[in-house]
Amino acid sequence: MSNRPITLTTDFGAGSPYVAAMKGVLLSINPQARLLDLDHAIAPQNLQQAAWFLEQSVPWFPPETIHVVVVDPGVGTQRRLLLVRAGTQWLVTPDNGCWMPAANRLTPSPQVWRLSNSLYWMSDLSRTFHGRDILAPVAAHLSFGVPPESFGESLQDWTQLWLPAPQSEPRGLVGEVIVVDSFGNLITNLLASHLGADPLFVIGKHTVKGLVGTYGEARVGETVALIGSAGHLEIAVVNGSAADRLGIGVGAKVVVTPAPRKRP
Amino acid sequence: MSNRPITLTTDFGAGSPYVAAMKGVLLSINPQARLLDLDHAIAPQNLQQAAWFLEQSVPWFPPETIHVVVVDPGVGTQRRLLLVRAGTQWLVTPDNGCWMPAANRLTPSPQVWRLSNSLYWMSDLSRTFHGRDILAPVAAHLSFGVPPESFGESLQDWTQLWLPAPQSEPRGLVGEVIVVDSFGNLITNLLASHLGADPLFVIGKHTVKGLVGTYGEARVGETVALIGSAGHLEIAVVNGSAADRLGIGVGAKVVVTPAPRKRP
Amino acid sequence: MSNRPITLTTDFGAGSPYVAAMKGVLLSINPQARLLDLDHAIAPQNLQQAAWFLEQSVPWFPPETIHVVVVDPGVGTQRRLLLVRAGTQWLVTPDNGCWMPAANRLTPSPQVWRLSNSLYWMSDLSRTFHGRDILAPVAAHLSFGVPPESFGESLQDWTQLWLPAPQSEPRGLVGEVIVVDSFGNLITNLLASHLGADPLFVIGKHTVKGLVGTYGEARVGETVALIGSAGHLEIAVVNGSAADRLGIGVGAKVVVTPAPRKRP
Repeated sequence: MSNRPITLTTDFGAGSPYVAAMKGVLLSINPQARLLDLDHAIAPQNLQQAAWFLEQSVPWFPPETIHVVVVDPGVGTQRRLLLVRAGTQWLVTPDNGCWMPAANRLTPSPQVWRLSNSLYWMSDLSRTFHGRDILAPVAAHLSFGVPPESFGESLQDWTQLWLPAPQSEPRGLVGEVIVVDSFGNLITNLLASHLGADPLFVIGKHTVKGLVGTYGEARVGETVALIGSAGHLEIAVVNGSAADRLGIGVGAKVVVTPAPRKRP
Repeated sequence: MSNRPITLTTDFGAGSPYVAAMKGVLLSINPQARLLDLDHAIAPQNLQQAAWFLEQSVPWFPPETIHVVVVDPGVGTQRRLLLVRAGTQWLVTPDNGCWMPAANRLTPSPQVWRLSNSLYWMSDLSRTFHGRDILAPVAAHLSFGVPPESFGESLQDWTQLWLPAPQSEPRGLVGEVIVVDSFGNLITNLLASHLGADPLFVIGKHTVKGLVGTYGEARVGETVALIGSAGHLEIAVVNGSAADRLGIGVGAKVVVTPAPRKRP
Repeated sequence: MSNRPITLTTDFGAGSPYVAAMKGVLLSINPQARLLDLDHAIAPQNLQQAAWFLEQSVPWFPPETIHVVVVDPGVGTQRRLLLVRAGTQWLVTPDNGCWMPAANRLTPSPQVWRLSNSLYWMSDLSRTFHGRDILAPVAAHLSFGVPPESFGESLQDWTQLWLPAPQSEPRGLVGEVIVVDSFGNLITNLLASHLGADPLFVIGKHTVKGLVGTYGEARVGETVALIGSAGHLEIAVVNGSAADRLGIGVGAKVVVTPAPRKRP
């Protein structure tokens, strides 16, 4: 029998019983379910962070993994719930687009179904906890190999996620910090392909010259720019927190200019 | 062979090796143990939060699940340790009553045993870490299907948990905030059955009129009252934190009055 | 087939996708991998905390458990990565010595291999995320029972971890707080064997007389000294936080003197 692994990513935080209740439902339907916590500390309703998180993690999983995502600013509204097939991965998620950057890494043409068949839901449905009452039971049934079309009709017009894109301005290419990671690294929406040779970065009152290949090329405490483990430009402080050191957070602009030519 | 799943709920927090040591002991006794973290961020020694947490999560688990609970203000005293059978669920817990609201949802008559048979404990017993030295090994043996009476004698006079109950006062029914969840929602000890038609809630300097069925019935940022996913009245801010917005925490009173009649 | 359990201990914190990506890699190589989170809240690059954490948890695990440790101040430098055999346990870790106190509890003579065989690494290697690209795939292959010498050459000159040792001074034996646990207990580098009969402890402006055997021997709120569950002297406040109460943190000195003789 099929028994696909099921991952959980939420903004439920710690100290509340919401993740636990979802695990109970998952195990009640599939007592052999193979559950994995990815993370429960996505900032509440922060779709940009969720999108970055999924983009950096989902592609590493083995075929047929099911990713349950509950970051859901629209809970209690008429927003739809989705089952997504992206390459070999499954996502079960509210229709808010946070799954799209991950899917884009896996396939140009994801398949999407709207969860509408209440046969696969908890019979006593709450109006505020669809993670427990709809997403978890759908994932548990999917882990058995139930075909996707059983859960609802195919969908083409899913909600797009707006993510800030770098802008070309007279002063240079202007990107921004999209997330601060747990080390205080400033992850931006700039990719390696956005950068010319010998770039110079201005962020707040700070200027960082050039890219290092890795932290070890700079001194402890130095502020550096590098292409992180997943292709995004990061501003980092070696063995420290760039967010604390520079006083910079999400949304801060990063201006990229070609570095001034060195005098010969 | 039986291999019941084992969940872990503690107030051990993050960054300390106490949960890890318990997992080691559990696996050492039952190398195939199926371990699930529920949560380790119950506030230290907060039995009210633990009670709410277990009430909202334990009932969702499949039959024969074993819940190890280590929230233990009495560690190092002569307080007893218990094995509880509530409906189809098992709990292994200090004798402080935090398991009772969960058990009440499952059965009118839980069975309780006192852990007294040290054959099932670690032989080198510490005096401050009974979670690792007694509760974990008992749970591991229980996961094999060891019968409950093997662990100790039956008990009738377990410790009751005092939880604040709503009080009838001249100004109305007075409940209180029993926990603030990870979204900043204020969870109260008031249930749907406590509320008449068209209720009005006074909390601190704030008044909330009527109940919404779900967050989607109000605007983003609005303060609402609703019956949450587990039957408790909650005061919430749509897509925000009621705790932050209203400056309200655990213990705050919530006065319920019938709303004034509208003029025709 | 062998399928050794794999634990994960990192300083990756919450809200970032680094742990999740490692889990994806582990499962991609061994789809039946039995993964356990130990903790991901080691303070960034804090080897002393990591060492204490591993010392208190690794020895409890069953034979053949694989512990993946990613606390890595040297990421991106030429520091080596290691496979360690300590007693019946395996550790996969950067070469920074944080594994040594745990190993010392298990064996006088650990075996160490340098990870140098890139056949067992991810083929598309990042320069900043060796946890995902080297340590995780090595652990996954090891879980199948691949012999240790397959991963690289034997090593004798691994990096030692400097940990502060108690110092004999005229005023007494001077130890220090090496970590504050999640309850606010002050864990020191003093062991039971360092203490004479009837000791007296001076920490900051505070004096604590004698040892209690367990919290229950003192009143709630009282400051006590005791030998914790793993042999270290701890300064604790019963049902409270000694760190908060005394305003004391990591690095604070603890002076031990023989207590003054009582007058007859």
